[in-house]
Amino acid sequence: MTKIRNALFVMCDQLRADHLSVYGHPSLATPNLDALAARGVVFDNAYVSSPVCGPSRMSYYTGRSMASHGAIWNRCPLSARELTLGDYLARAGRTAVLAGKTHVMPDTEGFERFGIEVESERGALLRAGGFTSIDRYDGHHEPGAESGYPAYLRAHGFGGERPWHEHVIATVDPQGGVHDGWQMRNVHWPSRVPVEHSETRYMTDRAIDFVRRQADAPWALHLSLVKPHWPYVAPAPYHAMYSLADCLPIRKRPEELVDAHPVVAAFRQHEWCVNWARDEVANHVRPVYMGLVRQVDDEIGRLVAALRELGRLDDTLIVFCADHGEFSGDHWLGEKEMFYEQAARVPFIVVDPSREADATRGTREARFVECVDVVPTILDALGVEGDSHRIEGRSLLDLTRARPVEWRDMAVSEIDYSYYVARRLLGRAPGECRGWMVRTGPWKYVHWQGFAPQLYHLGDDPYEYVDRGTDPGLEPLRREMRDRLLAWLGSRKYRSTMGDAEVERRTGTSKNAGVYIGVW
Amino acid sequence: MTKIRNALFVMCDQLRADHLSVYGHPSLATPNLDALAARGVVFDNAYVSSPVCGPSRMSYYTGRSMASHGAIWNRCPLSARELTLGDYLARAGRTAVLAGKTHVMPDTEGFERFGIEVESERGALLRAGGFTSIDRYDGHHEPGAESGYPAYLRAHGFGGERPWHEHVIATVDPQGGVHDGWQMRNVHWPSRVPVEHSETRYMTDRAIDFVRRQADAPWALHLSLVKPHWPYVAPAPYHAMYSLADCLPIRKRPEELVDAHPVVAAFRQHEWCVNWARDEVANHVRPVYMGLVRQVDDEIGRLVAALRELGRLDDTLIVFCADHGEFSGDHWLGEKEMFYEQAARVPFIVVDPSREADATRGTREARFVECVDVVPTILDALGVEGDSHRIEGRSLLDLTRARPVEWRDMAVSEIDYSYYVARRLLGRAPGECRGWMVRTGPWKYVHWQGFAPQLYHLGDDPYEYVDRGTDPGLEPLRREMRDRLLAWLGSRKYRSTMGDAEVERRTGTSKNAGVYIGVW
Repeated sequence: MTKIRNALFVMCDQLRADHLSVYGHPSLATPNLDALAARGVVFDNAYVSSPVCGPSRMSYYTGRSMASHGAIWNRCPLSARELTLGDYLARAGRTAVLAGKTHVMPDTEGFERFGIEVESERGALLRAGGFTSIDRYDGHHEPGAESGYPAYLRAHGFGGERPWHEHVIATVDPQGGVHDGWQMRNVHWPSRVPVEHSETRYMTDRAIDFVRRQADAPWALHLSLVKPHWPYVAPAPYHAMYSLADCLPIRKRPEELVDAHPVVAAFRQHEWCVNWARDEVANHVRPVYMGLVRQVDDEIGRLVAALRELGRLDDTLIVFCADHGEFSGDHWLGEKEMFYEQAARVPFIVVDPSREADATRGTREARFVECVDVVPTILDALGVEGDSHRIEGRSLLDLTRARPVEWRDMAVSEIDYSYYVARRLLGRAPGECRGWMVRTGPWKYVHWQGFAPQLYHLGDDPYEYVDRGTDPGLEPLRREMRDRLLAWLGSRKYRSTMGDAEVERRTGTSKNAGVYIGVW
Repeated sequence: MTKIRNALFVMCDQLRADHLSVYGHPSLATPNLDALAARGVVFDNAYVSSPVCGPSRMSYYTGRSMASHGAIWNRCPLSARELTLGDYLARAGRTAVLAGKTHVMPDTEGFERFGIEVESERGALLRAGGFTSIDRYDGHHEPGAESGYPAYLRAHGFGGERPWHEHVIATVDPQGGVHDGWQMRNVHWPSRVPVEHSETRYMTDRAIDFVRRQADAPWALHLSLVKPHWPYVAPAPYHAMYSLADCLPIRKRPEELVDAHPVVAAFRQHEWCVNWARDEVANHVRPVYMGLVRQVDDEIGRLVAALRELGRLDDTLIVFCADHGEFSGDHWLGEKEMFYEQAARVPFIVVDPSREADATRGTREARFVECVDVVPTILDALGVEGDSHRIEGRSLLDLTRARPVEWRDMAVSEIDYSYYVARRLLGRAPGECRGWMVRTGPWKYVHWQGFAPQLYHLGDDPYEYVDRGTDPGLEPLRREMRDRLLAWLGSRKYRSTMGDAEVERRTGTSKNAGVYIGVW
């Protein structure tokens, strides 16, 4: 039996689970992910640790919840004292390689405290969250010096001051007029760059080049695509591949606006929600979002074909996931941040090529998955030891290999909306803006600092229209949810400076250290 | 009006509040602390953030709860990424000076990660928890190179391989026989060193020398005495100053042993509890413990006299406290760790010399104080900015100066007993051994991972004999306590890499960074 030697950890940015055919989209075919699913396990209840890029990714890379890694938002630095997938792999002499986005921001205060030069080898690794970057590109900004994309674009004739802004996210109308893709009204036209020079193609090619270069040397690669995240600019033919008739219905109801939850109501006042709440906007942008998803699927297909050709499918663990979804006008919301399914639930496929996983191949798994499970899963597959006193997730090989384990019966997600204008609308200070989702059985409970909770029954009300957060008859249930959240918060792994084995070794050993407590 | 220029932060180790006359001890006079109290405010409900040296001290030094600083026990390193009093003072060009104990252990894993040499200046400061040590001595071990005490002892004729062990904690019987002070049966005899060479005198002299040397230069000094912590060896005349008749009654009842709480019952199996639970032991050791307390008071008197002589009483903030108390046989327990008043509640006196504090001078304050309040209090007094996104405590000058503020209505304390044999007796793994105390109104609630809670009514049952943790009629109260604990855990300050002002500055500013979210 072939041993797993490689790990391919693919993440998409802002990809709704319900926009893949393997999760039931009726008109958006994603055959390459269907094929991946047929070779692995599809997780139907995978929740992000936070429905925002930054904290979700830090949970994916550290195996720890937001409450533990502390990087609560985009551009909020990851503490230099946090260990990541790359740190664990380094213990086994291995490297975590990055192509694409991480959103890790350098802990400049920590660098200063410890006298670490930003440009040193140590500094580079910490800045990249422990990844060795072959090409880092965080998306939705002009790519910087860490990416080869700007030079690539220039070399292919897409120059200017800001090649990404002027070509990649610019669209061209049939008369040759050029439009700014930041404005959603312009995204029904194609990108100024053809598909072969698009972001998704470029970064997938970096991954393919890498796995080819590796030949028979083992590897662990994080391919982190910045799409289908906004700006919603798709290259031809993807920009026009779908029409309104192909879109899922917009899941919003007028009743949602009556006595709306204060935090959700405040979020609806953000410009992106005001716009996305208009049918005109949602109907205009959704087909393009679908095209971006379809392109992702096609690129995954190219990557998998390369792996097959290289003989890598039999010795490579594949994890496919997203950092969060988006609302696309559902619930009168744009973007993500709130805990509705469209944002908090993500596509999640694991292909475990080992013989032991044959029994689960092509099956679906309903048990809960969280971002924090990816690090322990990859380490388990590659036979590398992680830190049990730090990592809060669990190896999903327990599920792909149907090991006889007790699994978690709930999923938790966290948000801190301190950086949002919603905070000011609600009259709150930074640090008073936390919310937690507890998903268990058919229920989704959302606990807010300073506000009433939300509560939804996903069986009776799959689109979460009916908030039962103040329904008097359900107080016993909400109480149970609070107790679950209390237990969860109380079990975060904050003893980060000493491992479990060392604690075990030191238990009851004071006499060995010449300390005789209470001896008569 | 004189401005506060200096801070004197005195900590005792293992000092029960009820063993000071200012807290009502009927026969143990501590007149120097009485005098301090007359010049300041006595806090009647001061609780440690954890009833164990290590985590309690890390909370005192960081202004953060155990859940936030993560150093859960003695010798569990303080993360190099945690900031301490010394770090904050350094921002204002000032230094936190140490004479005595901190219990800070170096974060060697962090040192390695960041390439910090243990012997470098940075390394020395991190090892010492941000303090500049004039003499560091953590107690109950042979003092090491960081203390001048061994050389001092040798210079005064107390030599040998292990001068502390052979002289300071050795006792001498009337026939000249020498006994090991680790054995409690031997502590009714005096130490082999006279009082002028005892630990408490030695370290207080270091403090006095320091404040004299400073002359008019401002300073911030942490005098951290290792007494009355075991080994319970007192120099003459303190070893025999008190008799059994002077002792408080042993607060234990046979009923406490019936259906005892599993965690408390497991602790009672530790050797120190088995011994202390015997009247013979408690009656033998308690008078000596009282003598050690009395010596502390006398030394404080000498220090305050020196400050008076130097003219420092008018411009020096004084905080007097302890890292925790001890049971001395109460509740059939020795040592600390559990949340009964004897261990979790500590003496706490603040002398605020400013005119604004005149109205509270000599008064008692019932509102809750926690260890985490000391850093913000000292910073407030010295006019130095702390990190609002890290520090979880509050300035007690709000109380000494009767500022119109809302104060906390509860105190929380935490324990993790992973390192204790009790963990194995209870069949638990490291990391599954947490407990939390919530003190509010007359109630003390103790929440345990994996076990029923404890609940005491301190009004009806001041000695905490009656555990109402499973009383069916009190479930609504326990529910409220769990909700309080949930709110507390949910508000820990884990965003440590970016300050509140920066979050405020960045709120709703994505367009300034060229990012146009959901623009139509």
